[in-house]
Amino acid sequence: MSASKLKLNRLGVMGVGLIGGSLAVAAKRRGLVREVIGIGRNLNRLKEAQRSGIIDSFSEDCSALAGADLAVVCTPVHRIAENVSQICAATDDRTLVTDVGSIKGAIARSLSEYPVARKRFVGAHPLAGSHQTGFEHADSNLFSGRLCILTPDEQANPESVQRVGQFWEAIGMRVREMSAEEHDRVLALTSHLPHLVAAGLAALVDEESLEFASTGFRDTTRIAASDPELWTAIFSLNSEQLDAVLGRLIESLHHIRNDLKEGREDRILEFLTLARDRRRRFQDGQPQAPIPSDSNGAEPQ
Amino acid sequence: MSASKLKLNRLGVMGVGLIGGSLAVAAKRRGLVREVIGIGRNLNRLKEAQRSGIIDSFSEDCSALAGADLAVVCTPVHRIAENVSQICAATDDRTLVTDVGSIKGAIARSLSEYPVARKRFVGAHPLAGSHQTGFEHADSNLFSGRLCILTPDEQANPESVQRVGQFWEAIGMRVREMSAEEHDRVLALTSHLPHLVAAGLAALVDEESLEFASTGFRDTTRIAASDPELWTAIFSLNSEQLDAVLGRLIESLHHIRNDLKEGREDRILEFLTLARDRRRRFQDGQPQAPIPSDSNGAEPQ
Repeated sequence: MSASKLKLNRLGVMGVGLIGGSLAVAAKRRGLVREVIGIGRNLNRLKEAQRSGIIDSFSEDCSALAGADLAVVCTPVHRIAENVSQICAATDDRTLVTDVGSIKGAIARSLSEYPVARKRFVGAHPLAGSHQTGFEHADSNLFSGRLCILTPDEQANPESVQRVGQFWEAIGMRVREMSAEEHDRVLALTSHLPHLVAAGLAALVDEESLEFASTGFRDTTRIAASDPELWTAIFSLNSEQLDAVLGRLIESLHHIRNDLKEGREDRILEFLTLARDRRRRFQDGQPQAPIPSDSNGAEPQ
Repeated sequence: MSASKLKLNRLGVMGVGLIGGSLAVAAKRRGLVREVIGIGRNLNRLKEAQRSGIIDSFSEDCSALAGADLAVVCTPVHRIAENVSQICAATDDRTLVTDVGSIKGAIARSLSEYPVARKRFVGAHPLAGSHQTGFEHADSNLFSGRLCILTPDEQANPESVQRVGQFWEAIGMRVREMSAEEHDRVLALTSHLPHLVAAGLAALVDEESLEFASTGFRDTTRIAASDPELWTAIFSLNSEQLDAVLGRLIESLHHIRNDLKEGREDRILEFLTLARDRRRRFQDGQPQAPIPSDSNGAEPQ
């Protein structure tokens, strides 16, 4: 079945915030689904989401997902494993489960003793998001053209994996499969470490010096403005991989520090040239149009 | 004399690239100057700049600046001290000299044995720039609303300092005075360290992982795309101050690494909360309209 022919009768979304809301809207706009059921803990918020037309019905209780074709868990990372278990317990084999968590290994480990979940849950990490929160900012194009990493358990039903992949493709994403461990290793490097370092830079600058910070500081520390609780959970749940890449970064900073002390301009130039080339290759590989913050005029040294 | 009344007869610009060209255009558009003389090493490029109307005349030789009211040195940081000396030697006391170098202490130290330069040179660092190069991208608004740090020598003539400050104000900048050492200490923290760390992150990500890098990586490493030679010179010329802040960053990363190992989520949360608050205060203090890269939609975790 091609992605374009995917049709779901009932889609469950657990956690109707920016990501869950965007998923609901994207699925509806693309005609993938007849009905979206929102599950959450705040009935007032769910009612508002229903009034906005983002979801069709809602409940505090996973049993409302009985008979759903697919449920997507969009809750904070430290609650995902528990929520997946709840949905599996409240539904039967017809209901596949996926998620949007930005760490995958800890979730897989939590679910490793639960055969039902290992068969029906296909972990996913759509590499899309926003600094905004709340379904009010739901955006049906949030996922378009971006990458979604699937991390199926080895015990997962291959048809289920295929079907969940088709869902993410139908939402507009490019899908790649890897193990949960590989995902966490790669994301530690490309996402979690940059977040930690951005925070480290922002925390280091005293109030008096902030006035003299400019566009370089602005971009380098932008993601330090992210939700501290969310990122504490991500760091904790991926602490081993983060530790490994943080160790490598500290080592490389030590090398540069020595090169600076010894006046080894040749080595500093080599390091900066490698970094520039790597950054250029990243930019060249971006599927989107030129990135706004790269064509942004002012960039003091 | 108020900034708006500042009039220069002849303005010299040494190094007619993006910054020098933007200065020339800004001074002309604002009616501050009758004639702009470009000084450089590539006569063909200078001729093109003249044809584009960016400068009125040009020479390879500083003696063409005789009688100029002000000369602005816009050459790479490691050449500025020498160029200031050359201009001082080729002109008399009527010609004030300023620059745009992003380090100030090393320049001041190089000029410390040259009384003429200490009196006539008023170091400046306009916190404005671009990732683009060449006078073709000259922008008369590049400096508007931004901060310019003046670092006058204690032997500088107070009237000269005032007049150079008026020039930068007339270009549209807010002017602040501090010592060259203080400038280098603050900029090490707000600019040079972020550049070094952005390069460290970019250099660490292997080719295979680049595909999975997204907007967080994009912004955090944006300035790693900068010119390696320019930044090697900046790092070398401010190596002491950079060493000090780099040491502090490494220490703070060690702390976080220990907190991660010990599962101290309370401390990680405290660190990320401090970083977020600092980043927010930076954002609140920005004079400009909301920054594009902050309202940019997609931000995966």
